[in-house]
Amino acid sequence: MGIAVVGSLGLDTIQTPKGRVEEVLGGSAAYFALAARHFAPVHLVAVVGSDFPAEARAALTLPDLDLSGLEIAPGRTFRWEGVYSEDMNTRRTVRTELNVFEHFRPELPAAVRQLRDVFLANIDPVLQRDVLAQFTSPRLVLADTMNYWIANKRDELLETLKRVRILLINEEEARELTGESLTHKAARAILALGPETVVVKMGEHGAFLQSRGEYFACPAFPLETVVDPTGAGDTFAGGFMGALTRMGRLTEANLRRAVVYGCVLASYAVEEFSVGALLRVERGEVLRRAEAITAMTRVSLDNTARVLR
Amino acid sequence: MGIAVVGSLGLDTIQTPKGRVEEVLGGSAAYFALAARHFAPVHLVAVVGSDFPAEARAALTLPDLDLSGLEIAPGRTFRWEGVYSEDMNTRRTVRTELNVFEHFRPELPAAVRQLRDVFLANIDPVLQRDVLAQFTSPRLVLADTMNYWIANKRDELLETLKRVRILLINEEEARELTGESLTHKAARAILALGPETVVVKMGEHGAFLQSRGEYFACPAFPLETVVDPTGAGDTFAGGFMGALTRMGRLTEANLRRAVVYGCVLASYAVEEFSVGALLRVERGEVLRRAEAITAMTRVSLDNTARVLR
Repeated sequence: MGIAVVGSLGLDTIQTPKGRVEEVLGGSAAYFALAARHFAPVHLVAVVGSDFPAEARAALTLPDLDLSGLEIAPGRTFRWEGVYSEDMNTRRTVRTELNVFEHFRPELPAAVRQLRDVFLANIDPVLQRDVLAQFTSPRLVLADTMNYWIANKRDELLETLKRVRILLINEEEARELTGESLTHKAARAILALGPETVVVKMGEHGAFLQSRGEYFACPAFPLETVVDPTGAGDTFAGGFMGALTRMGRLTEANLRRAVVYGCVLASYAVEEFSVGALLRVERGEVLRRAEAITAMTRVSLDNTARVLR
Repeated sequence: MGIAVVGSLGLDTIQTPKGRVEEVLGGSAAYFALAARHFAPVHLVAVVGSDFPAEARAALTLPDLDLSGLEIAPGRTFRWEGVYSEDMNTRRTVRTELNVFEHFRPELPAAVRQLRDVFLANIDPVLQRDVLAQFTSPRLVLADTMNYWIANKRDELLETLKRVRILLINEEEARELTGESLTHKAARAILALGPETVVVKMGEHGAFLQSRGEYFACPAFPLETVVDPTGAGDTFAGGFMGALTRMGRLTEANLRRAVVYGCVLASYAVEEFSVGALLRVERGEVLRRAEAITAMTRVSLDNTARVLR
């Protein structure tokens, strides 16, 4: 049992109303892996440059995290710089340096090819497909994407979606991809493109799962402080997929539970800059937040039929 | 048992991406009353001009709706005209004619003064207080407000809030009122201003209740079509308060149930222009949607502790 994740590793420079950090460990694969490994072993497929700091590598050196698919290429590591708005609902990219990530064409190690569960993080849909083709018999294929690919590589993305079992996407992207302005209709329209399940990430509003005609809405954990939203989506993906892989069967009940764990892990990601909180979080804490989230929606309509006249 | 509602009745001209209507029955009191009367008798306190159309009055002439507090003043009825954006998340007011509503200073009929449950719709907070003072022994006082009063009559609004048991407010207004950017923290800050419970209306994302340290998040009913969001908040208020009044005790369980009924009634309001859907909706339909909403959040974490490594 294990999950392969293919995505970016990088050094982020981030400014939010709560502060600023420079060249901290980031990237979709980092957030995903550090969330998912609380549930199942994770195999990282990514590339960094020869300048990748020893501390960043040390943070990823964990018993449940296989780095045999981590390539170290000559050159500089991927870098991203962003500034968040006052309410943190929007962000502006100041700088993107692809560096070694520009020519990332991973050749998977033999052990990774055998894995059945694959997360294709937000990378070029052509690359997502090339990587997926290297797996011998993938079972659970999740993918993420973003507005850039929807706008600029739409046909390639649609081709990739045919091979994806579960798509993770945010609200705006779901609307952009489908042209539907109601979130749940956008989700349903995505089911016609290939995925059998869609999870729409809604930030402070939690997440929404659509699967086989069933809806599941899950609120976010109510945090005292949000420091940095970077990586929340990838961390959600890690908690969600980690829980699913660990539970095994893709039943509606398990999908719902997995959404709760996705929301819980995402709540840790945004409480601090970079991945520190994901490294420290403990089992008991995760279970407590998961229970708190489910308590937030508990309601019984028993015996209320007579409430109507 | 009955609910007094004090608010506006008017004629709305509305344009949304789904069409345009002119001078249709609207106003906070209309939407509220037509939702709440599915649960409990409603006593309307409002003013219209001598030009108020016979069909509009006929729509309000219902067994459960007491119009003894409806004043007919010489002059023209309140009118509002608005245009919604393509995604219907924002609207622009084209025209507001207060007309007879400008000098609305209701003197409540004796029978209305005895009522224990009062909804103060979105009107001047000074007027909300003046009206409330006319009730002999109000028990359940709900109020709505809007950004205009928050920005321009803040002190008066704060004075009114001290006398309000439950405040209904939307996300942006909650942030504006408290300066907190996280919705649940804004809700909690409002509890320090007087109300013992706050319901934050979140449109397509449903509603969020904060009460005595407990959170309850309720998704919106997933509609096939949204035709006109006008009145959704007042209709939510009607379903919420109607159900609460009918159930009687203000327990956490009842508050949660009431939020579900608020979301259900609001779903009918936005499916059509004006109040037609609220007039036609039947008991069985309401119960079906209420069950559908609760099914959308049902999740069990039983035996998932071992999901974490």
